[in-house]
Amino acid sequence: MSRSGRPSSSKLRWDSHRVPCAGPLSWVVLTVEDARRRHRQPSAPRPEGVARARLSSLARVPVTHREPPPLQPGTLRVTPLGGVGEIGRNMTVLEHRGRLLIIDCGVLFPEEHQPGVDLVLPDFSTLRERWDDVEAVILTHGHEDHIGGIPYLIEAGLKAPIVGSRFTLGLLQAKLAERRLEATLVEVASGETAELGPFTSEFVAVNHSIPDALAVCVLTSAGTLFHTGDFKADLTPLDNRLTDMASFYEIGERGLDLLLSDSTNADVSGFVATERDIGPVLERVVGDAAGRVFVVCTSSHVHRIQQVLNAAKQSGRQVAIVGRSMVRNTKIADDLGYLQVPPGLLLSVDDLDKLPSNRMLVLCTGSQGEPAAALARMARGDHRDFALTEGDTVVFASSLIPGNESAVYRLIDRLAYDGVDVVTRQQAPIHVSGHAAAGELTAVLTALRPRNFMPVHGEGRHLRAHAKLAMRTGVPSDRIIIARDGDVVDLTDGKASVVGQVSAGFTYVDGVGVGDVGEESLRDRLILGEEGFISAVVVVDARSGTVVSGPEISARGFADEDTLLDDIRQRVADDLAGAKSSGSSAPVDPDELRRIIRRSIGSRVNRVHRRRPMILVYVVET
Amino acid sequence: MSRSGRPSSSKLRWDSHRVPCAGPLSWVVLTVEDARRRHRQPSAPRPEGVARARLSSLARVPVTHREPPPLQPGTLRVTPLGGVGEIGRNMTVLEHRGRLLIIDCGVLFPEEHQPGVDLVLPDFSTLRERWDDVEAVILTHGHEDHIGGIPYLIEAGLKAPIVGSRFTLGLLQAKLAERRLEATLVEVASGETAELGPFTSEFVAVNHSIPDALAVCVLTSAGTLFHTGDFKADLTPLDNRLTDMASFYEIGERGLDLLLSDSTNADVSGFVATERDIGPVLERVVGDAAGRVFVVCTSSHVHRIQQVLNAAKQSGRQVAIVGRSMVRNTKIADDLGYLQVPPGLLLSVDDLDKLPSNRMLVLCTGSQGEPAAALARMARGDHRDFALTEGDTVVFASSLIPGNESAVYRLIDRLAYDGVDVVTRQQAPIHVSGHAAAGELTAVLTALRPRNFMPVHGEGRHLRAHAKLAMRTGVPSDRIIIARDGDVVDLTDGKASVVGQVSAGFTYVDGVGVGDVGEESLRDRLILGEEGFISAVVVVDARSGTVVSGPEISARGFADEDTLLDDIRQRVADDLAGAKSSGSSAPVDPDELRRIIRRSIGSRVNRVHRRRPMILVYVVET
Repeated sequence: MSRSGRPSSSKLRWDSHRVPCAGPLSWVVLTVEDARRRHRQPSAPRPEGVARARLSSLARVPVTHREPPPLQPGTLRVTPLGGVGEIGRNMTVLEHRGRLLIIDCGVLFPEEHQPGVDLVLPDFSTLRERWDDVEAVILTHGHEDHIGGIPYLIEAGLKAPIVGSRFTLGLLQAKLAERRLEATLVEVASGETAELGPFTSEFVAVNHSIPDALAVCVLTSAGTLFHTGDFKADLTPLDNRLTDMASFYEIGERGLDLLLSDSTNADVSGFVATERDIGPVLERVVGDAAGRVFVVCTSSHVHRIQQVLNAAKQSGRQVAIVGRSMVRNTKIADDLGYLQVPPGLLLSVDDLDKLPSNRMLVLCTGSQGEPAAALARMARGDHRDFALTEGDTVVFASSLIPGNESAVYRLIDRLAYDGVDVVTRQQAPIHVSGHAAAGELTAVLTALRPRNFMPVHGEGRHLRAHAKLAMRTGVPSDRIIIARDGDVVDLTDGKASVVGQVSAGFTYVDGVGVGDVGEESLRDRLILGEEGFISAVVVVDARSGTVVSGPEISARGFADEDTLLDDIRQRVADDLAGAKSSGSSAPVDPDELRRIIRRSIGSRVNRVHRRRPMILVYVVET
Repeated sequence: MSRSGRPSSSKLRWDSHRVPCAGPLSWVVLTVEDARRRHRQPSAPRPEGVARARLSSLARVPVTHREPPPLQPGTLRVTPLGGVGEIGRNMTVLEHRGRLLIIDCGVLFPEEHQPGVDLVLPDFSTLRERWDDVEAVILTHGHEDHIGGIPYLIEAGLKAPIVGSRFTLGLLQAKLAERRLEATLVEVASGETAELGPFTSEFVAVNHSIPDALAVCVLTSAGTLFHTGDFKADLTPLDNRLTDMASFYEIGERGLDLLLSDSTNADVSGFVATERDIGPVLERVVGDAAGRVFVVCTSSHVHRIQQVLNAAKQSGRQVAIVGRSMVRNTKIADDLGYLQVPPGLLLSVDDLDKLPSNRMLVLCTGSQGEPAAALARMARGDHRDFALTEGDTVVFASSLIPGNESAVYRLIDRLAYDGVDVVTRQQAPIHVSGHAAAGELTAVLTALRPRNFMPVHGEGRHLRAHAKLAMRTGVPSDRIIIARDGDVVDLTDGKASVVGQVSAGFTYVDGVGVGDVGEESLRDRLILGEEGFISAVVVVDARSGTVVSGPEISARGFADEDTLLDDIRQRVADDLAGAKSSGSSAPVDPDELRRIIRRSIGSRVNRVHRRRPMILVYVVET
C-alpha cells in the first residue's frame, strides 16, 4: 500500500501501458479537438507599435513583501516556487477555483556560499495544508532540476498522481524505487489531453537534451497558460521527434493568455546546432584515438549516448558502461526503446579489458568533475576497474555546468600531466546545448503570440534578455513579468500581474535532514570556515565568584596557534585582573565574566591578527 | 635609508630617467650587437620528422621528490616557483655560477577550498640564505600576478635591484609607497641590454593587456634562455608598439637553447583580434545608451581605458573616474604619458552629477564582481557617489577571470532586476584577450626555433596544448618539459632536463600574517565550514575522578540544535555510565574521559545526522 492509502501502483502501472489511475484524479483522455471545443476563445487583436519600448519600463517586483489577496473564481493564479531568478529547482504551482496543479519539482545544487549542503529544494510551505487540493503534478521531462524534488514532495504529503511521458516516468520510477517510495504515475504522450480537475492539460512534444520532453498547455475557465518546459527546436533530432511548432501555431491561433518559456539561452544569439552534427565529430575523435577511449556525458542524454555507441561501432571498438547512473539510465532507455544498442557491442568490464586498447571504449559518468564519479576516480587511480594512463583519450561530450569549472579543470590538468589526451567542446564540436537560443525563442514567441509573458528557467539576466525578445515580437512591456520565486501572478480578465508574494526560500537538504539547516547555521559555517574559532573555558566557584581554574583557551583554523594562544591568555588574564580591581568586591557575575573574556579575545585577535573568529566562552560553575 | 642600507632611491630614481643604481648590480647598457658579439653561438641543425610524434612521450615530472644535484659551472639552472601548473604567482629563478636572477614575483588569488586566505605567494624558502647571491629581479610587466609578490620579497630580505620598464616600475613604485617599502628600481626599455652578473639580459618589446610589457633573452656561458613574459602579437596595437618579431627571428638565428613561453591561450585556436577592433564597438555601445553609462575594466588596461575615454568624447559625454585602483592607475598612466586624456573630458564626481544623464560616463572598478569595488557597491546602493538604477547602462569591457563567474553573474542578475542594461562581451565584442592564441604561439615558436621548450604561465591543460604546438613546429618531444612549480630544470650541453625538485608550496597571506597559515589549519577551516563543530566541557574532581559538572555540550553550524544537543547529551550520559559500570572502580583518567565523550558524540552525529563535525572536548580538573 502506498502512503496515501491507495494501492501501490508505481511498479504495476509502469509495466502496463497507461492504466487509468485509481486516485482522486478524473482521468479522461481528450483529443486536442475536444479540448478546443470546450475552451474556444477568440483571438484578441494584437497591440501594435510597442516593439521598441524600453525594457526598463517592464513590470518589476515590488520590494515590499505583500500577502496575495484571496483567489477569485475568474482568476488563474501562477506561483513559481523555484527556477525563476535562478537555474535549478524548477517548480510552478497553478491555482484555479481552489484546486492546484504543480508543474515540475526539481532540485538545485548548492553553491560555494552554502557549505555542507547537499541539495536545495523549493519551499513547500504554501502546500502544507493543501495536499488534498492538488490535482496532479505534471513533469515536463526527467532532469534532476525538474524531478529531483519529487521524493521530498511525496515525503511532505503529496498524494496526487504524477503525470509525465514514458521516459520521464521511467527515470522517476527508478528514483522512487531507490528510496522505497510509492506514487501513482500516469503516462501521457504528445497530442494527448488530460482533464486534471479545472485544468485541462494538453501535452505538446518538444525536444531537449533528454528524450520525451513535453510542453504543456493548461486551459482553464480563467484563461489559457502555456509552459514550454525545457526545450530547443532541433529540426533534425536523432529520434525525429520535432518540437511541435504546428501545435504552437494552433495554440497561438486559439488565443494564449500567458506564456512561461525557458530562458536559459535567451542571451545567446542565433540557433542551437542540431544534435546530428555531433555524430560525425564523435566518430572522427574516436576514430583518431590510438589507445583506449573514455567518453563522459550526462547519463540521461540518451541521444548523445546513442551517438557514442554509433561512433564506437564505426571505429571497431566495443563498449563497457561504467558508473551507477550511466548503467541505470542506459538500461532504462534500452528497456523502454529509447536507445538502440547494436547487438554484441556492449561487453562487461572484464571482457572489454581483454581487448587491445584500440578496440576499447568506456562510457562513464563524471562529466562535471564530480570527485566520486567514475572519471575522477579513474584519474586518481582509485577506481575498481580502470586507471587512466598515458596514451588514453578522454572525451567530454558534455557542457560545463556553471559552478563546476574548477573541478573539471583540475581534473583535466591532472590528466594533462599524466599524458592523457583530453577532448572537450573547445577542441571539437562534440556538444550542443539543450536549450533554445534567442532565434528559436523568438520563433516560439511568434508562433504562440501570448497576451502576457513570464520568462522562466533563468537567472535575472536570462529573464531580462528573454523579455527583450518578447518585446521585439510585439508583447507590450506592461504585459511582461520579470518575476522572482514566490511572486504570485494572477491572470484576471486576460491580464497578468504580480499581486503578492509567498515564501519561496531555500530548503536545504543536508545529510539525512531536510529543511533542518537555516540561514543562521549557514552563516555560522561560513564564519567558522573563513575565520576559525577560539574557545575559552573558565571554572568559577559559584559562591565566591572566584576563578577556580582557567581560562583554558584553544583555537582552530589558525596556524602558529601557540603564539596566538599565549598572547590571548596573557591578554585575558590582564583584562580579568583589571575588571576585578576596578569593580566592587562583589562576586563576578558569570555573564559578565563571559562578556569580559569574549571582548578581550575579540579585540586582541581583531587588532593583532585582523581576524574575526567565532568566540565561544564557557563559564562552568562548581 | 632603505632596509638594505642603501640610500632610499625608489622615488629619486623614478624622477630621473635611468640612473645607474648604487647597489651591487654591475649596470652596463649594452646594445644587442655587443651582446651578440659576446655570446655568438652557431645555430644547431634542426631535427626533422618529429612533428607528428605522440605527445604522451613527453618528458614528465617524476612522482618522487628528489634533491637537485650541486650546480655545475657549465649549467644554467631554471626553477619555476610559481605559474607553472597554475595561473598566478608567476616567478622563475635562474641560477648560473652561484648567482641568481629572478624573473617576476606575483601573487595568486585564492580558490574556494582555501577559505579566509587573502593571497597566495610563491614559496621563498629556497632563497632564504641567498639574498646576497641575487643579481636582480626582472619584471616583465605590471600585472599583480607578476609584481604583487615584490613587497613580500623585499620584506623577506631581497636587496637586489628590480629591473623593469617605465610603466611597470610606475605601478610597482605606487605599491611600494603604499606599504612604505623602498627598493632600487632600474628602468630598462626594449632593445636595451643589461649585464646582470653572469646573466646578460636583452629586453624585447611584446604587447599585452597592459602597456610596456617586455620579454627577456638571458645569455649565459651555459646557453641562452628566452622568457616571453605575458604577451600577444597584436599587429595594430593602440600604441603602435609591436611585439618585436624581428628580434625574435634574430635570437632564433643566433641560437636559442631554452624557451619559456606564455601558455594561457594555447588551447584557443587562431589569433587574438586586435585591440583596435574594440574602439568602434565601444563607441556604438556608449552612443546607443540613452541614460548614464558606467564602464568597468581592469584598471591597468590603459589602452582599453583610452578607448573608453575616446568613446565618451565621441558621444559627447564627460567622464568621472571612480574606484581606488582606477584613480591611481589612470593617474600613473597619464603622468607617464601612456594615456592621452582629451582636455576637459574628466570631471569630478560632483560636477559630473550636475550633467544630464546622457552626458555622463563613469569609469570604475569592479569588473570581476568584487563586493568591495565601486560597481558592486553602486549596484547595492551603498556607494558614496552613485547608485545604479533603471535606465542606466553598465558596460563590462573586460574578461571574466575563472573563479569569478558566480560573483559577476550575481551582480548582473541584480542589475537585470533593477532595470539596468548590461553589456558584456557576450552582447558585443568589447573585449579581446591579452594572451597569444595558438596561431601566435606557433609563429613565435617558428621564429625562435628553441632547442628546448618549457611552456609556462598555465595550468596542466594549457602547458600540454602548448607542448603540442611546439612539437608541430619541430621541437623533439624529449626536449619539451611539462614541468610543475618547484621542478629544477638544468640546461647542460644544450639539453634541458628535470634534475630534481625544491619546495614550491603555497605561502598564504591571511590578514596581516604571511606564511602563518598551513595546510592543516586550512583543513580545519574546511571541516569547520562544511561540517560545523560540537564542543563538550566537563569538570572532574582531580582526586576522585568523578564528574563534578557537565558535560555541557554546545554546537555551531547545525540547525535544530536543541534536538541534536538533547540527543547527544543523553547519549554521552549513557556512554559515561556504561564506561563506569564496566570499568574498574579506579578514577577515570581525563584522557580516557575525553576519548569516551568524543567517540560518543562522533558516532551519534555520524550515524543519525551523517555529519562529521570537528569535536572538541574540554576536561577541566578542579
